[in-house]
Amino acid sequence: MTITHDVRATISALRAEVCGLHSELTRYQLVVWTAGNVSARVPGHDLMVIKPSGVSYDDLTPESMVLCDLDGEVVEGDLAPSSDTAAQAYVYRHMPDVGGVVHTHSTYATAWASRAEPIPCVLTMMADEFGGPVPVGPFALIGDDSIGRGIVETLQGSRSPAVLMQNHGVFSIGTNARSAVKAAVMCEDVARTVHIARQLGDPVPIPDHQVTSLFDRYQNVYGQ
Amino acid sequence: MTITHDVRATISALRAEVCGLHSELTRYQLVVWTAGNVSARVPGHDLMVIKPSGVSYDDLTPESMVLCDLDGEVVEGDLAPSSDTAAQAYVYRHMPDVGGVVHTHSTYATAWASRAEPIPCVLTMMADEFGGPVPVGPFALIGDDSIGRGIVETLQGSRSPAVLMQNHGVFSIGTNARSAVKAAVMCEDVARTVHIARQLGDPVPIPDHQVTSLFDRYQNVYGQ
Amino acid sequence: MTITHDVRATISALRAEVCGLHSELTRYQLVVWTAGNVSARVPGHDLMVIKPSGVSYDDLTPESMVLCDLDGEVVEGDLAPSSDTAAQAYVYRHMPDVGGVVHTHSTYATAWASRAEPIPCVLTMMADEFGGPVPVGPFALIGDDSIGRGIVETLQGSRSPAVLMQNHGVFSIGTNARSAVKAAVMCEDVARTVHIARQLGDPVPIPDHQVTSLFDRYQNVYGQ
Amino acid sequence: MTITHDVRATISALRAEVCGLHSELTRYQLVVWTAGNVSARVPGHDLMVIKPSGVSYDDLTPESMVLCDLDGEVVEGDLAPSSDTAAQAYVYRHMPDVGGVVHTHSTYATAWASRAEPIPCVLTMMADEFGGPVPVGPFALIGDDSIGRGIVETLQGSRSPAVLMQNHGVFSIGTNARSAVKAAVMCEDVARTVHIARQLGDPVPIPDHQVTSLFDRYQNVYGQ
Repeated sequence: MTITHDVRATISALRAEVCGLHSELTRYQLVVWTAGNVSARVPGHDLMVIKPSGVSYDDLTPESMVLCDLDGEVVEGDLAPSSDTAAQAYVYRHMPDVGGVVHTHSTYATAWASRAEPIPCVLTMMADEFGGPVPVGPFALIGDDSIGRGIVETLQGSRSPAVLMQNHGVFSIGTNARSAVKAAVMCEDVARTVHIARQLGDPVPIPDHQVTSLFDRYQNVYGQ
Repeated sequence: MTITHDVRATISALRAEVCGLHSELTRYQLVVWTAGNVSARVPGHDLMVIKPSGVSYDDLTPESMVLCDLDGEVVEGDLAPSSDTAAQAYVYRHMPDVGGVVHTHSTYATAWASRAEPIPCVLTMMADEFGGPVPVGPFALIGDDSIGRGIVETLQGSRSPAVLMQNHGVFSIGTNARSAVKAAVMCEDVARTVHIARQLGDPVPIPDHQVTSLFDRYQNVYGQ
Repeated sequence: MTITHDVRATISALRAEVCGLHSELTRYQLVVWTAGNVSARVPGHDLMVIKPSGVSYDDLTPESMVLCDLDGEVVEGDLAPSSDTAAQAYVYRHMPDVGGVVHTHSTYATAWASRAEPIPCVLTMMADEFGGPVPVGPFALIGDDSIGRGIVETLQGSRSPAVLMQNHGVFSIGTNARSAVKAAVMCEDVARTVHIARQLGDPVPIPDHQVTSLFDRYQNVYGQ
Repeated sequence: MTITHDVRATISALRAEVCGLHSELTRYQLVVWTAGNVSARVPGHDLMVIKPSGVSYDDLTPESMVLCDLDGEVVEGDLAPSSDTAAQAYVYRHMPDVGGVVHTHSTYATAWASRAEPIPCVLTMMADEFGGPVPVGPFALIGDDSIGRGIVETLQGSRSPAVLMQNHGVFSIGTNARSAVKAAVMCEDVARTVHIARQLGDPVPIPDHQVTSLFDRYQNVYGQ
């Protein structure tokens, strides 16, 4: 594969961005040790940038990020890529609007995942960001396309940018890596708040049309 | 609107104060990503200073705070103000003694809010600060005055400086922005402690006249 | 009261120590805003050093600590002392071996306190430090000797260096301020661990003679 | 015992490593005050390096680590070694492949330990790292070989690198000190996630052959 000078600059910027975004995973305590990662698509190319496998967050540098093609094969990098590379490559191949993917085992979201139970949409903030429940994907072993396929099939049937893979953890997506990280952060936050709400009773449901109203406004009006 | 030199100095100081107070929201983990904000009234003027919408806490500067009138319209600022500006402006218009307003989705308080359940006053610290239960306000969609009206009507019937808006989160008030932040911090603290107490049984009630006695002393004697 | 040159040096050192120990309260998240304090007896004198009332932990300096007599009256200091001064002075007057007192509303311990339920001794670490359950003291309003008396009467019937005052929070003692802070830290830690243990079933009891054996060893052998 | 120049260099490096690894225990909040420690075997020698007893994590230096023989007797060091030295020495004597041992009272793991309940393997991450449930060892008093013997007998019947000692806490092992620390971090993480999962229902079991498949892959493929 020939990489032109222009793409070089894009890749270089994405290496720095992907590397830096891991500090949001540690800031919000979504990960322990080395168990979580961020990737980004190289826009317009069948390439992605992803964390190396088993490297501590403190030791990450832009240069240590691994450049892979969308079959998950290494194109450039001295280190082996995340063991989640194949799953994330599958997502990029099948969801052309996705520019970033994040994987964590964040505590509360993974607890819902271990019960194979979707997080019900009982918070306005959750309606804003997820537009409904956070759905559950299938149990899938690592090693073939079953994780990637489970992520894609579940997310394509939902407004949610995050999926709880059964007994496993969270995969989140976004138009870029930063928005995928935001979805991972918000997913854990609503997983925790709804868990705690449910411990002492039943949250009040929000009617579907109001969930939709909140979602539409937030996607179009919020922010700068 | 003409802004005189004297008011300029006040606004400049409030921009710095409001900006800086957001670090208390992150210190006590009341907010994730960009989901919470602080505002302050410009004393003696129909103006308020508030966080810009969707900007990360790390990136806030005094200059990026937005000056609005009390209809929530921008008077000065390059950025769009918080999407909660209309609600907070409503509070300033209808509660003349309020000098600061804070909004968060802090975890435990929002869990109570999602069940539409007031936090019972079973802690002396809660009697001190809240003078009784933390009340619940109505479910209200963003976009008109219904959030602002819900906040004001609920707080006017209570000693509490904080209200749990159903399925949504916390709004707190104070004579200035700092005391509104304090109320937001204390609200999450009592929401968490009473939640945990209730998980394993029933807290001992505190008789109403003792709640009142604690509240009166604290409001008049505590601090410098 | 005449304060000699020698006592001056002691007081100066205690001001620095008491001030610095507040950073352990924030490090272990035992306190929010200004709601907790440390004091130390001036050995051999009817004097104590304590945190000023309502001052933020970030703003504490050795000079801002307040010197009081053991009736709780200010001897030296520009600021009003903690509103817990009277209670802590009572402890120093009635427990001559106590050199330090700490007060917090730490979350899990205060949750047990709000149910008026002692923390059962089901952890070896708890046997080491507390020698049995952490006991509950009476509900008592601030303003006279009832809090101090409740602390003293409860601790005199127990090996525990910490007491849960009903609906209120924790008071802990030690031969000096540092050991009282340690007891406050350990009290929250065991309150949290036993709470979590109890959420999913019943901890295995530890027989009394083994609690005693652990306590005796730890008090005599542990550390340097 | 004569210590040759070559072994000196190894011991010096291990002192620095063991000292530094304690910062992972505090980073992940596995320990409070001084209640937890790391040790490492000196490869090829009947020697170990361990934390001194009762010293604050902030005050640890490589030089303050204590060199002991595998009977737990001090070989070099001005300070008394951890009170867990005898138990850890027993592990090194009876498990020749173990190069590092860690002891904590981390909250969620200790909660399971206080109920004498193994943590069921319901997370893929747990299958990866532990290869099955985290087992429970016997109640054992400090002072003879009963803690060490309980650790060894429990771990020898399990794939897990961590054991929950009843009413006590966690001991974890690894081929070196860093991998033992990783096991301690992961043990608390899965103890917390499975606890939270269980609070609202029953996690979906993972069939044994899939646990084995995940364990085998992770031990052989993950990382660099």
